[in-house]
Amino acid sequence: MADLTAGVVGASGFTGGELLRLLAAHPEFEIEQATSRSYDGKSVGSVHPNLRGTHPNLRFSDPEELASVDVLFTATPHGVSMEQIDRFQDAAETVVDLSADFRLDTEAEYEEWYDGHSRPELLEESVYALPEINREALPGADLIASGGCNATATILGLHPLIEAGVLDGSEQVVVDVKVGSSEGGAGGGDASSHPERSGVVRPYAPTGHRHEAEIESFLGLDLSFTCHAVDMIRGASATAHVFPNGPVSKGDLWKAYRGAYEDEPFMRMAAGGSGVYRYPEPKAVAGTNYGEVGFELDPSNKRVVVFSAIDNMMKGSAGQAVHAANVALGLNETAGLEFQGLHPVGSP
Amino acid sequence: MADLTAGVVGASGFTGGELLRLLAAHPEFEIEQATSRSYDGKSVGSVHPNLRGTHPNLRFSDPEELASVDVLFTATPHGVSMEQIDRFQDAAETVVDLSADFRLDTEAEYEEWYDGHSRPELLEESVYALPEINREALPGADLIASGGCNATATILGLHPLIEAGVLDGSEQVVVDVKVGSSEGGAGGGDASSHPERSGVVRPYAPTGHRHEAEIESFLGLDLSFTCHAVDMIRGASATAHVFPNGPVSKGDLWKAYRGAYEDEPFMRMAAGGSGVYRYPEPKAVAGTNYGEVGFELDPSNKRVVVFSAIDNMMKGSAGQAVHAANVALGLNETAGLEFQGLHPVGSP
Amino acid sequence: MADLTAGVVGASGFTGGELLRLLAAHPEFEIEQATSRSYDGKSVGSVHPNLRGTHPNLRFSDPEELASVDVLFTATPHGVSMEQIDRFQDAAETVVDLSADFRLDTEAEYEEWYDGHSRPELLEESVYALPEINREALPGADLIASGGCNATATILGLHPLIEAGVLDGSEQVVVDVKVGSSEGGAGGGDASSHPERSGVVRPYAPTGHRHEAEIESFLGLDLSFTCHAVDMIRGASATAHVFPNGPVSKGDLWKAYRGAYEDEPFMRMAAGGSGVYRYPEPKAVAGTNYGEVGFELDPSNKRVVVFSAIDNMMKGSAGQAVHAANVALGLNETAGLEFQGLHPVGSP
Amino acid sequence: MADLTAGVVGASGFTGGELLRLLAAHPEFEIEQATSRSYDGKSVGSVHPNLRGTHPNLRFSDPEELASVDVLFTATPHGVSMEQIDRFQDAAETVVDLSADFRLDTEAEYEEWYDGHSRPELLEESVYALPEINREALPGADLIASGGCNATATILGLHPLIEAGVLDGSEQVVVDVKVGSSEGGAGGGDASSHPERSGVVRPYAPTGHRHEAEIESFLGLDLSFTCHAVDMIRGASATAHVFPNGPVSKGDLWKAYRGAYEDEPFMRMAAGGSGVYRYPEPKAVAGTNYGEVGFELDPSNKRVVVFSAIDNMMKGSAGQAVHAANVALGLNETAGLEFQGLHPVGSP
Repeated sequence: MADLTAGVVGASGFTGGELLRLLAAHPEFEIEQATSRSYDGKSVGSVHPNLRGTHPNLRFSDPEELASVDVLFTATPHGVSMEQIDRFQDAAETVVDLSADFRLDTEAEYEEWYDGHSRPELLEESVYALPEINREALPGADLIASGGCNATATILGLHPLIEAGVLDGSEQVVVDVKVGSSEGGAGGGDASSHPERSGVVRPYAPTGHRHEAEIESFLGLDLSFTCHAVDMIRGASATAHVFPNGPVSKGDLWKAYRGAYEDEPFMRMAAGGSGVYRYPEPKAVAGTNYGEVGFELDPSNKRVVVFSAIDNMMKGSAGQAVHAANVALGLNETAGLEFQGLHPVGSP
Repeated sequence: MADLTAGVVGASGFTGGELLRLLAAHPEFEIEQATSRSYDGKSVGSVHPNLRGTHPNLRFSDPEELASVDVLFTATPHGVSMEQIDRFQDAAETVVDLSADFRLDTEAEYEEWYDGHSRPELLEESVYALPEINREALPGADLIASGGCNATATILGLHPLIEAGVLDGSEQVVVDVKVGSSEGGAGGGDASSHPERSGVVRPYAPTGHRHEAEIESFLGLDLSFTCHAVDMIRGASATAHVFPNGPVSKGDLWKAYRGAYEDEPFMRMAAGGSGVYRYPEPKAVAGTNYGEVGFELDPSNKRVVVFSAIDNMMKGSAGQAVHAANVALGLNETAGLEFQGLHPVGSP
Repeated sequence: MADLTAGVVGASGFTGGELLRLLAAHPEFEIEQATSRSYDGKSVGSVHPNLRGTHPNLRFSDPEELASVDVLFTATPHGVSMEQIDRFQDAAETVVDLSADFRLDTEAEYEEWYDGHSRPELLEESVYALPEINREALPGADLIASGGCNATATILGLHPLIEAGVLDGSEQVVVDVKVGSSEGGAGGGDASSHPERSGVVRPYAPTGHRHEAEIESFLGLDLSFTCHAVDMIRGASATAHVFPNGPVSKGDLWKAYRGAYEDEPFMRMAAGGSGVYRYPEPKAVAGTNYGEVGFELDPSNKRVVVFSAIDNMMKGSAGQAVHAANVALGLNETAGLEFQGLHPVGSP
Repeated sequence: MADLTAGVVGASGFTGGELLRLLAAHPEFEIEQATSRSYDGKSVGSVHPNLRGTHPNLRFSDPEELASVDVLFTATPHGVSMEQIDRFQDAAETVVDLSADFRLDTEAEYEEWYDGHSRPELLEESVYALPEINREALPGADLIASGGCNATATILGLHPLIEAGVLDGSEQVVVDVKVGSSEGGAGGGDASSHPERSGVVRPYAPTGHRHEAEIESFLGLDLSFTCHAVDMIRGASATAHVFPNGPVSKGDLWKAYRGAYEDEPFMRMAAGGSGVYRYPEPKAVAGTNYGEVGFELDPSNKRVVVFSAIDNMMKGSAGQAVHAANVALGLNETAGLEFQGLHPVGSP
């Protein structure tokens, strides 16, 4: 039944493993190749324990020899894809890149935020993956850039306010993001070791985080952006403190968010109500491709507080990539992404 | 496509929520009713955040008014099912009970380990759910007793050794089980509060744990059983220290476990090898219906150490119940239970 | 050598237990009484396991019968102290109240943020405990109000900027606080149960948090305040996003903070540098009375990001209370509070 | 007042940092030197955040140039001390080694369990540190070998039963130890990274753990020993399943443990009782030099279950080393080790 072949470059990393998991359960894709320089020849289950038994015959292979596939997902460190893009595009008609290499629109932005770009002519052609804001541009795209996790969480929270005209881009916006340890990737160094990383509230990239570029580019507004590492494994939670220029009611906000998301298969609202889980939480979406958004109004200081939560490995990375591939290739949009998540659950 | 109707009694608890999650994604079942005395009238998503959006129209209903369904899953505190069993059986041809009320075989055992039994005549008729050891007895069963989590983990680890004749029941067997906080259920009291429960290694029921009865009854051996609460949410891990009467080789052990499990869709082996995950771990099966078993041989003291790991909410409870219902009703055995789990993941 | 007697009202709660721990090791105090309505007659070690063996003869006693002591620490739920203050003051010349009942200055504030105040005439007389900002007012004080944890973290971060004139109170200030589960106290309900509380990033009191009143009252500025529960037990971390009206350099900031804190025995700076712990973190001060502050400058949006971290049970509660008592009574300021903390450590 | 000078070799590791913390607060010692090859010249606070501010002038220095001190604590990887012991003994009259290099009695044991020993003539002279079983041998000792964490936990649990004659060494004893992530040391590799290490119950060294040698050597009995990594940072918990040859009553057990420990300043009993903390738990002793032991009797299988809990960094390492030095040098035995621990607390 699987008519399309898929490859994963960088399959031994966390994101690569998540792609293997999603593709293995996807009704339309068959995994043709999973590359890993370090684990070449080893079984995928030896690195990703959830896959032991699932892919009994699948082994990592050498990234130098790419098989020809319908879709190639590339989960490589930033900077690799721009160097290897010709090889990737030779191997597959559709390339979905999960690094930052093709997310921004202009060479100037890469010069400001990264170390420049070696293939700037591809930037205009590449399509930002997030279907909730970019669905129309995806069908038939050759090169898709899956969004950054912190950027995705922030954009999902703020985009409806821009669309609905609640914000026009001139407002003060402060975004405080909390992220889990999987963002550091496999083998994250001393700061990621369990004794040092457990129980933290650790400011990192307190200013100048590169995802700021991605957010500002997509939303057309300047923001003040700070990240904190907290004790969870998966998850990104963005809290945006927004100060609209004029009066805004709860009704206006509900209208903006419902207008944006009520037909979206992967978006849910949580804005008050009863019980333990009243607002968006990473736990509520852990392991899933869902995003949650919610808000509260602070009349004392004319502030709107917007909460958004995703699983950074899913909606913020591998899930978004598969979602975008589904849309790009005209498949059922939710194929392979139906998992509803668990309760109770840790981060998970 | 869903041809069968299902009900869940006690649907606001952790196990009940897990049943709702599994049944909602199950290709053959439609949820007809989810009862909760405390949350009667509330949406299921208000209690189980993973289900917000998934069951937009499903609300908890009064357990006093049971709908007629094909299968009724009862996730009630111990002692309730034996009192209510006539009502449950009036409502459904097949009842799968997740409490301990119908697990043991004889009234005498309930008198020894519990407070007796009000319907002992049903004990012979009821079928223990665990398909790996009881598959033949399930088709057509009216009353199925889903196994206890700690008992399930232990039985899965030791049963192959009994079957293969490595153990005959006369040996010394010490079982040390580590469990997560979800075993305490929703609203677990002071000992389950986050400040008191985080980071623990806490002996509980150090002797006389009721699951001992279940294990001894099924395996036909006496054992020394002790549980510890550790810092995870889902998961039960059993380590059995076994002292066979005669010499046993690794080959004998592999043969015993392969013979028992190589055709089982939900069992995996992990016994040494390379990488981080060399033996069974709850993390490797978190959120799934898989069980993992493995072993090591200690030549210095003629000991076999057997490791087994499950998700207590899945293989140890709701997953086992759905698995058994699939077998009992002649459905595809893995229907609704294909989730492979996540990596990286917490407990989760 | 202990010349002074001390009593603790509400000694079975988390804060009360922390007071017992500090007073037991304090060179100048002897514990005369530890009251608890629920545990009357039980040993303190049966509730606070760290104290088993330490106070072999100390048992909780009835709060209705207060012993006469030199200092009485009252760790009761908000609203109790204002009702019982006469009894408390009859029992001790110096009362240090750890609730919110005497923190604010005016009855009007209690009407706005709480349910009013039954003894407003005492508000002027009571002294806010935090020695870093209120040291001069403490000696000889009869009624001391120990500060709230989130307020303390925030005030310690921002007060030096006010003092140094970097802020004049007209600026936009957004404060995002992350707190541990001990803030919920012993027996915190469903939301505090381990399965629901682990791994969270949970917005709570997203607007209208009562500590806002305390901060605004002490700093003389309006702020936008939001709290998130994260997975730690002890700790409060405040991140303040501040937008000064004019240009500010790193040198200005160092000068402001050094000027405020270089002679403070319990304040430390962490602002960049190398290694894993570059900014204030609750882990670095866990179990101690230290506060850490640090900052970063964001030239792109003229923002100062101020980080501050404390142990909510210590600097944010019991430690602050003992510190204030030391100052009030003319003792060595650091007596009983010298513990340096642990590394590695969880939250802890 | 500090009359004695102390040095720490390997001061940037977790154990070395713990030694610095203890020595800094110790009334009799002054830290003369803290060596670290990797951090030579850096401040100790840059590695150990709890010490920032505490040792403002203390920097790591080159381990090749040892200062002359009264006591030298060596926290080096196994194998280093036996090579460097002459240099260490030249630098200090008393050397307390925290590695395994001088724990066992005979060269034969090092050949069986390690890679042999280069200075076997020193093995007879060296004294095992644990004061509870070796107090008489410590005064005046030149070379003290601080015990291994898992061995210490196990020995503290079982030694009283040997002493009291409840065990004679011929019995079946199964010990199942649970340990925290700090045992892996700073920079523990992939298996210690937060995403892989959080929420685990991970069998490690399921058979053949080297601490088995240490335990068997000190207790004179064979045992079956298995370790599991669980989600805590500090802590080692040993559960021993013991099968005495004859009948044993609770009274016999209380007598054995009280006889052994009632005068010990760092030992506490916890055997049943009420409340959340009924048995020994690492949380109850986290950050302290206390050890807790307790037991339960299982009449159904003539088993005694013995629980013991320590902080592996303290009683299982640095605390034991300082305790032994206090005894060896005739100081107050509890000097510098009075910290009572925290409640609530994580692992911590």
